[in-house]
Amino acid sequence: MTDNKKDTAGLRGRSAGETALCTVGKSGAGLTYCGYDIADLAEHARFEEVAYLLFHGELPNRQQLDSYLTRLMTLRKMPEALRKTLELMPATTHPMDVMRTACSMLGTITPEHDFAEQQTHIDRMLALFPAIICYWYRFHQEGVKIDIELDDKETGSYFLHLLHGRVPNALHGDAMNASLIAYAEHEFNASTFAARVCASTLSDIYACITTAIGTLKGPLHGGANEAAMAMISQWRTPEEAEKGILEKLAKKEKIMGFGHAVYRESDPRNAIVKAWSKRLAEEHDDRVLYPVSVRCEEVMWREKHLFCNADFFHASAYHFMGIPTPLFTPIFVCSRLTGWAAHVMEQRANNRIIRPSADYTGPENRPWLPIEQR
Amino acid sequence: MTDNKKDTAGLRGRSAGETALCTVGKSGAGLTYCGYDIADLAEHARFEEVAYLLFHGELPNRQQLDSYLTRLMTLRKMPEALRKTLELMPATTHPMDVMRTACSMLGTITPEHDFAEQQTHIDRMLALFPAIICYWYRFHQEGVKIDIELDDKETGSYFLHLLHGRVPNALHGDAMNASLIAYAEHEFNASTFAARVCASTLSDIYACITTAIGTLKGPLHGGANEAAMAMISQWRTPEEAEKGILEKLAKKEKIMGFGHAVYRESDPRNAIVKAWSKRLAEEHDDRVLYPVSVRCEEVMWREKHLFCNADFFHASAYHFMGIPTPLFTPIFVCSRLTGWAAHVMEQRANNRIIRPSADYTGPENRPWLPIEQR
Repeated sequence: MTDNKKDTAGLRGRSAGETALCTVGKSGAGLTYCGYDIADLAEHARFEEVAYLLFHGELPNRQQLDSYLTRLMTLRKMPEALRKTLELMPATTHPMDVMRTACSMLGTITPEHDFAEQQTHIDRMLALFPAIICYWYRFHQEGVKIDIELDDKETGSYFLHLLHGRVPNALHGDAMNASLIAYAEHEFNASTFAARVCASTLSDIYACITTAIGTLKGPLHGGANEAAMAMISQWRTPEEAEKGILEKLAKKEKIMGFGHAVYRESDPRNAIVKAWSKRLAEEHDDRVLYPVSVRCEEVMWREKHLFCNADFFHASAYHFMGIPTPLFTPIFVCSRLTGWAAHVMEQRANNRIIRPSADYTGPENRPWLPIEQR
Repeated sequence: MTDNKKDTAGLRGRSAGETALCTVGKSGAGLTYCGYDIADLAEHARFEEVAYLLFHGELPNRQQLDSYLTRLMTLRKMPEALRKTLELMPATTHPMDVMRTACSMLGTITPEHDFAEQQTHIDRMLALFPAIICYWYRFHQEGVKIDIELDDKETGSYFLHLLHGRVPNALHGDAMNASLIAYAEHEFNASTFAARVCASTLSDIYACITTAIGTLKGPLHGGANEAAMAMISQWRTPEEAEKGILEKLAKKEKIMGFGHAVYRESDPRNAIVKAWSKRLAEEHDDRVLYPVSVRCEEVMWREKHLFCNADFFHASAYHFMGIPTPLFTPIFVCSRLTGWAAHVMEQRANNRIIRPSADYTGPENRPWLPIEQR
């Protein structure tokens, strides 16, 4: 069956399967994880609580959450072959290539032999991913071999501690927590869908997550917060930002961090991330980046009716916490891993290999032409 | 738009885009690459000629082919960091995990900075993949560090030379050549489709190929030739094979190497591969594996109207050339790399991010429940 070509492109608006994990823009704006509104989760939950929700379909009680936090801490052990591989990767490597390769390498060291083991492997990745990127970064930037077995309970604080070498304050820990929740899951986005295609051949969990990381790397997907940072850091005042945005629009340049493939009126994650960016700006005594970002938002809405997506205010928020821009998308990985893994488990539980067909646009049958006659 | 659920599963029979590269079962049986029939290609062409065809849309003339063969030979250089990474992977690693990780690692060492460079990176992978798997295999199995800069002109002979440490005879070189052609391209199969999803975010070529390798690994996709080998090697006579197949059918066990998601009456690759298996059996003076395979084919057709796909006779053919079973799927990678890469280039040339939607089956909106109340 061949569908209308305009609809076909990118499978936009067409269902490619079922999920019980997430609604995106069901009523034009909303986002829910397993039935819970993203605003409630970002305000009240801890990231590991959300991870548990995505993996099990229900929120944990206190004992379950505590035991899960403890479990993740015990899995913070870097296998020697992985550590050496991180050291072998060039200092100039794209951090997303580091994540992709390290995830794949981890799959050679602690392979998933049976789907019955899947949760263990997912937990190991959840425990290790912050350490993978921070170990590689600090080894190549500072020449230090950091200790990764720290006793921060939560993923967000753990990441900042690894990166900066000191326990973060509560504000930063909470900001990271909300950020990780906001990025955790988003239905059949490209990286998640790629992970499901991989899972549908019954490949292993590391293959699925490696696939997702490689797919998230693309500038049309995960790289928007880095691109937003590069843009806003050019401007010193809101007036400069307004002028700059108008110039870009006049030149029809793509402006990253705005609009969305599914949402039409707003991205429900933006209010969350923007509020955190504001609090961090106040703590940081920032008079530039936050006002510049707000002006960008105003101008884009006024001129193009385009709204900030989850990525735009993440740029300033991460910057205020001293996170280098190249590590923005790896943080997205540390979070979205939960959604990817939940989708892989869901695909496995009710699987059919994902194998679409294609419309052929090539030459008709041609007779063989011997090489001497070409 | 929500489609009928039965159709939706696995996107079967639904178009997910356009391609000029390949027709699969257009008239129920045929397979063409860029308009050329697979039977013509397997009989007359060299694998590198087919690679050139897939990359450029036209067959090369003599000068173009010779210069391409020379170019591939010059790219047979193993970066030191990649060699060390192969040595760090455990000897027990699944060979497809070796391929996936090595491809990703190569992308950290010689990254694709611009799509204008894509052909160089594709050629490097085409040149290096046989060496990657054979270096890892012989290092861990035999404790030797093989020289990979050999002067075999063609990929098939090069692979066998690396594996066995001697130049293969012409029959084996030609058999490998036909095998690589038969596996080179197959439209929107799961691994190729996953590579296109990855490419659609504008991620790099190593990410796309890493994705494809991880997806091909799944037993519902690339692993069928290995599974076929495991099955046929149990039986010593055609009679035993017949009895064994009937028992499996009675127990409703899945029998790998038969049937296909798209073909209905036969897989056009089977006649090609079967003919090579027969010739190799004669050279090998085999009285067991080939007759056993033929009987399996007869019984499956008689009992279930199921035909051999490309994988089934590959098992015996590879075995006759002394190829260890765990390396069967990596050979598939060395071949299909050409189709994957051609699809990535095609996706990039007319791109829209592949982002379908999903049918939600989860809980309705739920109010937040504080942890103490759970």
